Amino acid sequence: MKMNADELQAYLAKVFPQAFGPGRPSRVEAVGKHTATVRFSAGERHLRPGGTVSGPALMALSDATAYVAILSALGPVPLAVTTNLSINFLRKADPGDLLAECKLIKLGKRLAVCEVGIRPAAGGELVSHAVATYSIPPQRDLDDGN
Amino acid sequence: MKMNADELQAYLAKVFPQAFGPGRPSRVEAVGKHTATVRFSAGERHLRPGGTVSGPALMALSDATAYVAILSALGPVPLAVTTNLSINFLRKADPGDLLAECKLIKLGKRLAVCEVGIRPAAGGELVSHAVATYSIPPQRDLDDGN
Amino acid sequence: MKMNADELQAYLAKVFPQAFGPGRPSRVEAVGKHTATVRFSAGERHLRPGGTVSGPALMALSDATAYVAILSALGPVPLAVTTNLSINFLRKADPGDLLAECKLIKLGKRLAVCEVGIRPAAGGELVSHAVATYSIPPQRDLDDGN
Amino acid sequence: MKMNADELQAYLAKVFPQAFGPGRPSRVEAVGKHTATVRFSAGERHLRPGGTVSGPALMALSDATAYVAILSALGPVPLAVTTNLSINFLRKADPGDLLAECKLIKLGKRLAVCEVGIRPAAGGELVSHAVATYSIPPQRDLDDGN
Repeated sequence: MKMNADELQAYLAKVFPQAFGPGRPSRVEAVGKHTATVRFSAGERHLRPGGTVSGPALMALSDATAYVAILSALGPVPLAVTTNLSINFLRKADPGDLLAECKLIKLGKRLAVCEVGIRPAAGGELVSHAVATYSIPPQRDLDDGN
Repeated sequence: MKMNADELQAYLAKVFPQAFGPGRPSRVEAVGKHTATVRFSAGERHLRPGGTVSGPALMALSDATAYVAILSALGPVPLAVTTNLSINFLRKADPGDLLAECKLIKLGKRLAVCEVGIRPAAGGELVSHAVATYSIPPQRDLDDGN
Repeated sequence: MKMNADELQAYLAKVFPQAFGPGRPSRVEAVGKHTATVRFSAGERHLRPGGTVSGPALMALSDATAYVAILSALGPVPLAVTTNLSINFLRKADPGDLLAECKLIKLGKRLAVCEVGIRPAAGGELVSHAVATYSIPPQRDLDDGN
Repeated sequence: MKMNADELQAYLAKVFPQAFGPGRPSRVEAVGKHTATVRFSAGERHLRPGGTVSGPALMALSDATAYVAILSALGPVPLAVTTNLSINFLRKADPGDLLAECKLIKLGKRLAVCEVGIRPAAGGELVSHAVATYSIPPQRDLDDGN
């Protein structure tokens, strides 16, 4: 790990203040080797009628959590960009906090591929499952192959 | 077509006021047989540093445009839900309006599959390309097969 | 489980003899609650120059393993059809047997969503990761929700 | 275009003899600027009971057609590898030849993104629609930006 949860939270509060700033919905909950967990407290604008969290909010959360996992592994990589995100919406998200858990399934020289599952923080089955690919800028120095 | 562009705009301003309400970024530009175009005027909160439109904003716009195409073909189907969305981010979006164009590539009894390309309203190459699948509730009466 | 590994192997040898018949590359290795594992012994026609297993062979194996998991959970559902398959190719597959492991991440009334990871039977990192969606025919009687 | 249809057919007959060799199912039908069309005459082993073309055969055809489009644009790039393929199966494929049409929607320095639609050669609606991403090896000399 190049950055721990506190360092990531501080960094993200600066570069994505709308999501990770003070009073905003997203918090870095934990990071590990090639994993990251983000807690999301949906606000009014993330909800659909009936109180379920909207699809775009789940997409944004998946993308952000994957970015956290990559930052944790590589350190600040400001030019890493999402090239593909594919998400399946599996069940309605009941009101309450969500936890997004990301696992890096490939961390190569040029591409990182991440899997992100979102479920209620209170427990229960997956609300959504996403796979995202990031393009890593060529200049960096990476110690693991591919 | 069960709903034209004006009817869709009025309906969406009610059910998705944050995106389609007065003063909000999204407008139904045109609908045709199995097609829809939505214009998007990015606001401050949709931009990344440097002024490019964020990935989550493009995802949300792709999803909304697909929904417009389905509504246009089927009439109000409040229970139609996105089951999958897969998006490729192809180029940075320069400042200025975007046009999202959706084509329904399948409209079945149970599933609709949509392709959505987003490009600058001023012209130019695709900024993103998405394919989304919607689950259609079983109760409806549809005249074309599956 | 409605079918165990032996019952599945016998059923698949009949309906997909080219993949699961005697002397063919695929074998049902294990099934569990919402999981399935298939062993694949690549033949000459599945290999690329250099001896790595081809992408289409990995796609076919992912699809077959997801089908095994669905059959195991639901019993023979001859009309279940793949509606979407999205696969990431992560690393080259060295010569030798592969194991494809599937986890059902949603088993609904109308749709099943499966995740399939393929890795060398000898151990090691994922060669590919796929997510596939199946449409379940409406006539069946299913005991779990959605 | 770096290679025309005849040059591509000859090259592919060498590197993918099982698909493009004499008497095999696939033929390069046409290539244009960032487009390619491949004709596929399904053999017994590509069919499901009932005579419809199997999902894995459509996946392989989509992948091959995307590769043809990339070869046509870049010339022989033996190391270009598929990193992601996402396919929607839209309708059953009736017996008879299929045409796979590919459009390159991005040809960057490091990644190419292709869209591939397959329909009956006799005409009719899409049988499947795929989007595939290829990683382009870094050594090449490419005249259009990323």
